Amino acid sequence: MLDILNWTDASPEARTRALTRPASSSSAGPAARDIVDAIRDQGDEAVRAYAKRLDGYAPGDFRVPEGVLKAARAALDPRDAEAIKAAADAVRRFHVQQGYRGYSVETWPGVTASRRATPVDTAALYVPAGSAPLVSSLIMLAIPAQLAGVPRIVVVAPPAGDGGVNPALLAAADLLGLDEVYAIGGAQAIAALSFGAAGLPRADKIFGPGNAYVAAAKAYVSSLPGGPAVDLPAGPSEVMVIADETADPDLVASDLLSQAEHDPSAQVMLVCFDAATADRVTASVAKLLEDLPRAAIAREALAASAILVCDSVDDAIDIANIYAPEHLILQAESAERLLAGVRHAGSIFVGAWTPEAAGDYAAGPNHTLPTAGAARAHGGVSVESFQKTTTILRASEAGAVALAPTVERLAALEQLDAHGLAMRLRRERANTGDVAPDAGPRAGTKRRKTKETDVTVTVNLDRDGPIRIATGIGYFDHMLDQVARHGGFALDVAVEGDLEIDGHHTIEDVCLTFGEALRAALGDKRGLGRFGFELPMDESRAAAWIDLSGRPFAKFEGEIPGEFVGEFPVEMTAHAFRSIAESLGAAIHLKVEGENAHHMVEGCFKAFGRALRQALRVEGDALPSTKGMLA
Amino acid sequence: MLDILNWTDASPEARTRALTRPASSSSAGPAARDIVDAIRDQGDEAVRAYAKRLDGYAPGDFRVPEGVLKAARAALDPRDAEAIKAAADAVRRFHVQQGYRGYSVETWPGVTASRRATPVDTAALYVPAGSAPLVSSLIMLAIPAQLAGVPRIVVVAPPAGDGGVNPALLAAADLLGLDEVYAIGGAQAIAALSFGAAGLPRADKIFGPGNAYVAAAKAYVSSLPGGPAVDLPAGPSEVMVIADETADPDLVASDLLSQAEHDPSAQVMLVCFDAATADRVTASVAKLLEDLPRAAIAREALAASAILVCDSVDDAIDIANIYAPEHLILQAESAERLLAGVRHAGSIFVGAWTPEAAGDYAAGPNHTLPTAGAARAHGGVSVESFQKTTTILRASEAGAVALAPTVERLAALEQLDAHGLAMRLRRERANTGDVAPDAGPRAGTKRRKTKETDVTVTVNLDRDGPIRIATGIGYFDHMLDQVARHGGFALDVAVEGDLEIDGHHTIEDVCLTFGEALRAALGDKRGLGRFGFELPMDESRAAAWIDLSGRPFAKFEGEIPGEFVGEFPVEMTAHAFRSIAESLGAAIHLKVEGENAHHMVEGCFKAFGRALRQALRVEGDALPSTKGMLA
Repeated sequence: MLDILNWTDASPEARTRALTRPASSSSAGPAARDIVDAIRDQGDEAVRAYAKRLDGYAPGDFRVPEGVLKAARAALDPRDAEAIKAAADAVRRFHVQQGYRGYSVETWPGVTASRRATPVDTAALYVPAGSAPLVSSLIMLAIPAQLAGVPRIVVVAPPAGDGGVNPALLAAADLLGLDEVYAIGGAQAIAALSFGAAGLPRADKIFGPGNAYVAAAKAYVSSLPGGPAVDLPAGPSEVMVIADETADPDLVASDLLSQAEHDPSAQVMLVCFDAATADRVTASVAKLLEDLPRAAIAREALAASAILVCDSVDDAIDIANIYAPEHLILQAESAERLLAGVRHAGSIFVGAWTPEAAGDYAAGPNHTLPTAGAARAHGGVSVESFQKTTTILRASEAGAVALAPTVERLAALEQLDAHGLAMRLRRERANTGDVAPDAGPRAGTKRRKTKETDVTVTVNLDRDGPIRIATGIGYFDHMLDQVARHGGFALDVAVEGDLEIDGHHTIEDVCLTFGEALRAALGDKRGLGRFGFELPMDESRAAAWIDLSGRPFAKFEGEIPGEFVGEFPVEMTAHAFRSIAESLGAAIHLKVEGENAHHMVEGCFKAFGRALRQALRVEGDALPSTKGMLA
Repeated sequence: MLDILNWTDASPEARTRALTRPASSSSAGPAARDIVDAIRDQGDEAVRAYAKRLDGYAPGDFRVPEGVLKAARAALDPRDAEAIKAAADAVRRFHVQQGYRGYSVETWPGVTASRRATPVDTAALYVPAGSAPLVSSLIMLAIPAQLAGVPRIVVVAPPAGDGGVNPALLAAADLLGLDEVYAIGGAQAIAALSFGAAGLPRADKIFGPGNAYVAAAKAYVSSLPGGPAVDLPAGPSEVMVIADETADPDLVASDLLSQAEHDPSAQVMLVCFDAATADRVTASVAKLLEDLPRAAIAREALAASAILVCDSVDDAIDIANIYAPEHLILQAESAERLLAGVRHAGSIFVGAWTPEAAGDYAAGPNHTLPTAGAARAHGGVSVESFQKTTTILRASEAGAVALAPTVERLAALEQLDAHGLAMRLRRERANTGDVAPDAGPRAGTKRRKTKETDVTVTVNLDRDGPIRIATGIGYFDHMLDQVARHGGFALDVAVEGDLEIDGHHTIEDVCLTFGEALRAALGDKRGLGRFGFELPMDESRAAAWIDLSGRPFAKFEGEIPGEFVGEFPVEMTAHAFRSIAESLGAAIHLKVEGENAHHMVEGCFKAFGRALRQALRVEGDALPSTKGMLA
């Protein structure tokens, strides 16, 4: 059933053939293009006509009413709801670490170059939901979209049964906080999202798997001028397992079958080091197939797949790098060497205890991955997939003068005289006072000297370093470092304190001075709005919301156990934020739950730093997660 | 010459029309596809035939000999060489901050999910070089490719004059350390790179601007199964300037002309708030055009462009967000409000002193940017563009048991029984001893107790936190924090030291213990190779190279001024690394230059941490920059 190729003895042609994906013979491409063109030219009516013809479902409004979503959730088996929530939590824990980094650097004296990340405005998530509801696909797309802060997330799914969308999928959407779902599938759904037709919004980027028509339509619309972006080039799903003679044949076989049951065109490859392993796995596949409901599909996929028997770990690494598999499973004693050597793969599963199924559903990493060798140049869907970056340049008068000779020289070399002129005009106007000076950096320094302490705090909101903190209280230093690092600004705190008594005055006075310095740095740019951030930290969870309103208000919810973290008195946590709120003139709400005081205090400061970063910079790489919550 | 539209009074249709890019009427698409198909089917001969016909140049070998590169560099005006180096340095300073972040998180008890970034194997940089050599395009593509660590970077450029490539471009390639240049342009170059023909390698991703044929060929090859990836959808270059009545009309005009001179199809838009500003700018454009060599091109571009007069900053923000310009220049008192409101733009230039020309050549940010509204979903070229991510999952026996109920439940919901089976088989085998246990985390704890100090150090190489350091020497804590943070591992350092005398023993003993703990954590996985990292830090530059060979060796080059940084004795820097090398059993080479002791010491520890990260994890997100250097 699975062809066996001896890699070592095989000719170069046989090797190439074994690692070449079968060409698609589908006629989906031209058909999908016809549908897209018709909908572009004829609009709503064409959407309805294709939906009627292909899905058998063309209601007045494709949108699923909110009541139907709520009813589906109410009807969902609570154990399914629990599984969906648990999977979403793990996916969120993994993806919250992602996102393009925003930063600023001074590239020339007087020239500040920055990068910021922002979400796409409208993301469309296509979720196949014909016979079975692919709730895992919805989780894998919705969580990174929410973490990126996408303002409008729309879900499209083919109608199931006699109209409407599969109830389990609707329930999952509701659990994930998604309320905009359309019951339409196929190339007509992709086209409607590309042009904004039949009540569907125009999407800036379309995500998700689908059949050959959906894949072809995505590729086509993304090639049109002004067309939406798409997540990944599409192809049938695939797995490569590298197993040695120590591998359990049943575990290898069950992993191969997990892939094979997806689709008759799914790709399954086993790489091993001896014929006996190949035989054992083949026997186990045959045995396990007997009880498999989707055995017919799996058999078809296996018929087009292969076992490669090679001589060495280096050969196996070469095979994986040539093939660049979507999924790579390592069940071999040399797993670490294989892992280090493989450069091209969508997702790698290390060791016997890590089936691909774990990653498909609930382990954390995304399951929307590059197929058909696209792993040579693409990764899977991530928070970055829902963002884009903008670079920002600010030159001062002095900066323009510093840059000018280099720019003018290169413009002359490239014979682009207007470019040279634009720079020369600045150089000539410099130091004449004819052009208004630019605003300075948003920086502030404050000193607070009492009988008890002498505190100096400097912040620069337009730089993300250096961070220098020395309060004499190690854990408090660590906390302020968290705020600046996660807030993305430079911070210098110097203290002469009365630590011989206790940390109270130092912490309070540092916080008051910090708030004052921040306020000074913000200048008249307050009122930037309300920003929130929530983060998990081991067993703890902390959330912070800030409104730089000018009006001080502080609210702290949570019970932190114990008295001290290092030399830091736990009871000072709430007090620290009250002090900052007072001197900064801001509303600060903090909420923390957990068991470990260290995590809980650190979570508060980190979440505060993250919320501050958004409030100060409006950077999209800071992840607003009030949306990213399961209800 | 520039049409003026009053935005406030305009109909919705007129507004849409004003912000719609003109449709391309080019026949380049079908022609480019024919060329690509012919080269796919007929190979080398077809490449040569098209090169002969279209470029008039089809040598036996398209590669430019190294001697020709060296000669071009020798012949380059030293002032041009200096300008190229200065621009490359600034671009490197900006881009070194980029790159996908690698990380590990424990998503379930016993389940570790990681992400690593790796470069593409072969990147091709297409540089237009017909009449003028676009050395700036080469800089903008080569620097991020080098920072990403791309092993093979190839440059293709159309032949200029009577064969070979423009000498200034060749000189720039040599200055940038690029030695693989091919003299071939157009769709035939893109096709040759896509299939690996006529002596050109098969590229995994193709970057760079080009004419309509090149753009069409890139779009087509990226849509082929197994075809290369490409950087960005292509369109004519464009700028939007938002100017108020305080703007200097000559500066605005020179920025508009910088765009208009590129190409007859370049897009130029001015948004202002009153008719008088529009008139002043128009007059200045007419005046400056008189002396411009490329005036004919600029006039053609301006004829298709427009001035929009609107009423408010909010209107201007709306216009920018609808248009999503490649370049956006803000010359208005409300620049900060505009900056905060604009969500979609490739690059933004803030204030009168920041011409687009600065960013085109030498300011630091990339000039390869999204056109035609693609900024709604795409950023410009970055280090990330040359990388891709791979996720890695490791479950322990306990982890598999923890995951199983959720995975099995969801597999049942989706009716994918083999998925459930793969998880169930693990659950059933757990705790039976039938499957070999996975290796534990790479962690180690060491304690070193002498009469002078009592040091305990714990490291966990498979987690990237927490980091807890308390040596009693604030700056040294900061340094160790840098090492762990940049090294990407968990570190706990606890010390009872004889600080009342001086910091010497503490620093030495902590370093010795740290090395021992690292060595223990590495287990038998030493000999991972030689890794280096170099980083700029303000005026300083520090480089570190590590070989985890088992043999201790330390070399320190550099003169750090002064005696102390905080309480940290500067002379202990070299000693600290010698201590680590000794107990870790590693060769450590450090080199630092600069003026500021704080930066220099910190640079050493940071560079060491970064080099260590690579040595420990083989993560591609750490940027090898020995390649990224100008000779």
